Amino acid sequence: MADSDSLIIVTTTVADRPTADQLARSLVESCHAACVQIVPEISSTYYWQGEMCVEAECLLLIKTLASKYAELEAELRSLHPYDEPEIVAIAASAVSQSYLQWAIDALARQK
Amino acid sequence: MADSDSLIIVTTTVADRPTADQLARSLVESCHAACVQIVPEISSTYYWQGEMCVEAECLLLIKTLASKYAELEAELRSLHPYDEPEIVAIAASAVSQSYLQWAIDALARQK
Amino acid sequence: MADSDSLIIVTTTVADRPTADQLARSLVESCHAACVQIVPEISSTYYWQGEMCVEAECLLLIKTLASKYAELEAELRSLHPYDEPEIVAIAASAVSQSYLQWAIDALARQK
Repeated sequence: MADSDSLIIVTTTVADRPTADQLARSLVESCHAACVQIVPEISSTYYWQGEMCVEAECLLLIKTLASKYAELEAELRSLHPYDEPEIVAIAASAVSQSYLQWAIDALARQK
Repeated sequence: MADSDSLIIVTTTVADRPTADQLARSLVESCHAACVQIVPEISSTYYWQGEMCVEAECLLLIKTLASKYAELEAELRSLHPYDEPEIVAIAASAVSQSYLQWAIDALARQK
Repeated sequence: MADSDSLIIVTTTVADRPTADQLARSLVESCHAACVQIVPEISSTYYWQGEMCVEAECLLLIKTLASKYAELEAELRSLHPYDEPEIVAIAASAVSQSYLQWAIDALARQK
């Protein structure tokens, strides 16, 4: 587990760019994310209900703090169009301290 | 080291999209991966045998369990066209439990 | 914290492809990075000085060793056009040993 004030990158995917843009804005607006990066036009290969699927998707890289993970997961579930969205967190092992402070301040912004 | 049933993301790269698509299908079909995401059109800069190389590649993000890493690395080596492929695992620090269960079930699928 | 000779992936972003290409070459040339991958055409959403920003960027995935992180961060700061660049390291939890050796040798290359 990452220590509570370390930076984490949470990944999820959505089917199209408008949904990705909307989700990114919403998570930043609500201070669940300091920054959201969208990697467009990826493809995902997986089995779903017995069928091999190859789907065009957008990948979201959501930067937040470990202490915010549970809140972010709940918010993502409420906003996400999928029944079973990928929600995976990766902890930073090192980070520029001034960038981390920028993220902490962004997440504490007065909405 | 990640604990054995945690989710890991393993990265590798290949030179072109058909190879990436084929590798993704093969790893999902053989239950080495629950899901493989392809990020097309990246570029990689590195030195190889004394020359600076800048190559167009596709990046694969392979989702599996830590307990499957050794098997996946062996399978990747056997399928990969490169002599020295990038094979790097990153452990998830947190993950949606229902998504993790989906991945566990996908990896246990009857082939 | 990653142990000193483990592989790390350090991320940063820049505004355009020529800057990304130049930064990648420079970090590989100076042996701060074994390999730099550029993911072009991502978009980043964040608040900056009270305004929501949605910017086109390139994402750099910089492969180096944990023992080199401090040097790499200093070099990135000196080269980077941003006042507050993202500089985030993620430690590999497992890696192909021959690929790790390739990275160690690349970073020890005679400039």
